[in-house]
Amino acid sequence: MTTITELFACADETTGTAVTARAAAPAPAPGEQALLPVVGAGTRVPLVDGTQRTYANLDCAASAPALEAVAARVAEVLPLYASVHRGAGYLSQVSTALYEASRQAVARFVGAREDDVCVITRNTTDSLNLLAGVVPAGGRVLVLDVEHHANLLPWVQRSGTAQRGTGRVATVLPLEPTVAATLDAIRAELARGPYALLTLTGASNVTGEALPLDEVVAIAHAAGTRVAVDGAQLVPHRGFSLAATDVDYVAFSGHKTYAPYGAGALVGRRDWLDTGTPYLAGGGAVRDVRTDRTVWQPAPARHEAGSPNVVGAIALAQACDTLAALPAGALEAHEQALRARLVDGLAAIDGVEVARVWPDSADPVGVVTFTVADRNPGLVAAYLAAEHGIGVRDGRFCAHPLLAHLGAEQGAIRASVGVGTTAEHVDRLVAALAALQARGTQAQYEVVDGCWTVVDDTRPLIEVRGLDHLAATAAAACGPALDD
Amino acid sequence: MTTITELFACADETTGTAVTARAAAPAPAPGEQALLPVVGAGTRVPLVDGTQRTYANLDCAASAPALEAVAARVAEVLPLYASVHRGAGYLSQVSTALYEASRQAVARFVGAREDDVCVITRNTTDSLNLLAGVVPAGGRVLVLDVEHHANLLPWVQRSGTAQRGTGRVATVLPLEPTVAATLDAIRAELARGPYALLTLTGASNVTGEALPLDEVVAIAHAAGTRVAVDGAQLVPHRGFSLAATDVDYVAFSGHKTYAPYGAGALVGRRDWLDTGTPYLAGGGAVRDVRTDRTVWQPAPARHEAGSPNVVGAIALAQACDTLAALPAGALEAHEQALRARLVDGLAAIDGVEVARVWPDSADPVGVVTFTVADRNPGLVAAYLAAEHGIGVRDGRFCAHPLLAHLGAEQGAIRASVGVGTTAEHVDRLVAALAALQARGTQAQYEVVDGCWTVVDDTRPLIEVRGLDHLAATAAAACGPALDD
Repeated sequence: MTTITELFACADETTGTAVTARAAAPAPAPGEQALLPVVGAGTRVPLVDGTQRTYANLDCAASAPALEAVAARVAEVLPLYASVHRGAGYLSQVSTALYEASRQAVARFVGAREDDVCVITRNTTDSLNLLAGVVPAGGRVLVLDVEHHANLLPWVQRSGTAQRGTGRVATVLPLEPTVAATLDAIRAELARGPYALLTLTGASNVTGEALPLDEVVAIAHAAGTRVAVDGAQLVPHRGFSLAATDVDYVAFSGHKTYAPYGAGALVGRRDWLDTGTPYLAGGGAVRDVRTDRTVWQPAPARHEAGSPNVVGAIALAQACDTLAALPAGALEAHEQALRARLVDGLAAIDGVEVARVWPDSADPVGVVTFTVADRNPGLVAAYLAAEHGIGVRDGRFCAHPLLAHLGAEQGAIRASVGVGTTAEHVDRLVAALAALQARGTQAQYEVVDGCWTVVDDTRPLIEVRGLDHLAATAAAACGPALDD
Repeated sequence: MTTITELFACADETTGTAVTARAAAPAPAPGEQALLPVVGAGTRVPLVDGTQRTYANLDCAASAPALEAVAARVAEVLPLYASVHRGAGYLSQVSTALYEASRQAVARFVGAREDDVCVITRNTTDSLNLLAGVVPAGGRVLVLDVEHHANLLPWVQRSGTAQRGTGRVATVLPLEPTVAATLDAIRAELARGPYALLTLTGASNVTGEALPLDEVVAIAHAAGTRVAVDGAQLVPHRGFSLAATDVDYVAFSGHKTYAPYGAGALVGRRDWLDTGTPYLAGGGAVRDVRTDRTVWQPAPARHEAGSPNVVGAIALAQACDTLAALPAGALEAHEQALRARLVDGLAAIDGVEVARVWPDSADPVGVVTFTVADRNPGLVAAYLAAEHGIGVRDGRFCAHPLLAHLGAEQGAIRASVGVGTTAEHVDRLVAALAALQARGTQAQYEVVDGCWTVVDDTRPLIEVRGLDHLAATAAAACGPALDD
């Protein structure tokens, strides 16, 4: 058994040097180096051949590493942490100020209008479940079947179920083969309304594609329908503005925004949030309670029962501020360069196909899903990890209906980039896939408990308290249960 | 304007020395020194007379500081953080192992039985709302009106409301003047059942008192009723075991358990959790989704839709492990010594009255609520902060019905201790209250926006991004909205 500390000899010299070095040397091309330093950039992982390699995290669309600025901010405020809101002590007031300022920073990052409400949630799934609960009674909701589960199930699940529903009826609009046809279908369906809300992704977690938001908003507002955007993949990778787009609500996650401390946000119009059913029943959400009646607060307190995740909110705000401080266009240039490098590289490999929903969609974000001939996606992902130190995702990406549309019911492989991604990560993936197609895997692989693993894996196993070894855990985690 | 870093000259030499010193010197009496080092133990805060004082955090019942061991563990694992569950990369598998091992550690800390489920939630409020959602349809729930809102509103709010309810009917049992009479009332009410569930606090967040759990469980189980314990104040301060008590469910919070990273837990019987309505709709909670049907996972995945708070879970597990590693009885001895010191000190001050629910209750935890003659609780709390660097809480502690019972509708003052509390903190509070009664406040106070503040406050104001000064924030936070 090896302890975590022994196993991970973190190559500190490779961490966080990118930004410093850029100031002195000629600026590299976008995407060559990390755009911002992230925690763990130098973490080395064992390969099956006995060597080690710096980890290439190409699963940023699922969870992104913490920005170094975020970890530093958490370390800075932790000695000041105390109870918020009703605590009379000086640190309680400091913590309250930090929490409320974080709420403002998060709202500012997504271009909130003056009267918009920012509710600190735990993640996008939480935000969209919250929003589903405040749609006025009887309000119909239109959702597209390209959505991932976080923006599909909250709406579908509640519609028509007297058990949990509040009378909302969700209509799921089938995918059309082009953006133009999809916009037409939305327009036509909204005309059959009235719909209270149209909810759609700001960027697909499978293909990185999106409908043109401006056009969608114009169509929806013309029909008297509000628009909610699932910003999980859009906000961290492109930025977003409620005021500029006239979108009514946006949801996003801290763990995809380089602040993996358990906080996300829902930001948008005040009226539904002020009057809708409180999200959780509990302290903080109420103004007065007797056992025979309860007077609820307006938003955001109405939806933040219990003690808030102060540290998570501060971390998320720091990530927002750090991203916002990048030079204009730098984030998009970095990710577009990496995406183009990846897509071009994949195109040159025989048998690799990149999935697209709409041939006429513009500028997807840095999320690329592909298949490698008829190779099992789980085997390819296991190979990339074991032989090249690359982290990708395989499966159906919590978007089962979309994968079915794409003819990939059995799953695919997804690589996604972020501010910590470098050209070397992308090149390593492309070279690894080319090698796979040229000469197959070097190690032997088998399916154990539904999960592809290396036969006689020589990689050191880490001692994680209470679990015997990594393989057992990985197997337990590879069931179909635990998507995304 | 002063920045945070300038303002808080953290007296590092006073941090974390207690445990080290104890090994060499004769062991101090319980409660004299901190039992475990906490982050921020040496943080100094400004007083209104221009001096500084080490902060005495006597609001641990609301939010406790992070253990140093917890902050160190988070720093250790952050470079390994990657997407969990479906990620194929090595770090994804490490993160998954860490997350699932954390779940096991949390379950172990509360003495989970082999088949119990541990769901990682955000806090106690979240846990109890989740539990309220899985009580079988038609199952009646019995709740006492001594509960705080987290264990009152989830049950009351849903009962009888077709809009959100699932047919559960909650009965709120009025408080009886003694433990014995309350047990009799519970027994009598359960006989009028059947009740599916009796939910009660493991320790009141107002008085620290509790009903004898063993007797309650015996009464409830004899009537075929399950028992849920709100462990928010019990688990961090006394420890707790599901197996030893035969309690069916327990909920508790990380931010009260020295792990303020946004994670809490619900632990208990599998059957309701395996079959009840999924808590959030989204990815991870489902086995298969087509737009016309959804197949849900069993627990715990069923109730953990979206990406989990991995860092929060690891932090909570570390806090559990660190508390569990204390010598047997040390935690209780520490807090009992501090509570006794506080209660004895308060008893000697003219006009101070400590609130009790039941004169015959045994050994409350270290939460003490009191009034100071007819002085406004908000003024007393503001005085303690401004003139003595003490953090307490005033108000109604998210337990409005109980405060009404105690004749304190207008609120009271609460002091609560934890592993970072020292005898000096308690002595400072007692001396400050004695001084208040002897000669009143030194500064002048006024109510601004419903909040007691110092007239012409000379304390430095911190620059918190986007907020001009602390006073404005404190005022905003002192509305009735934001209890606990």
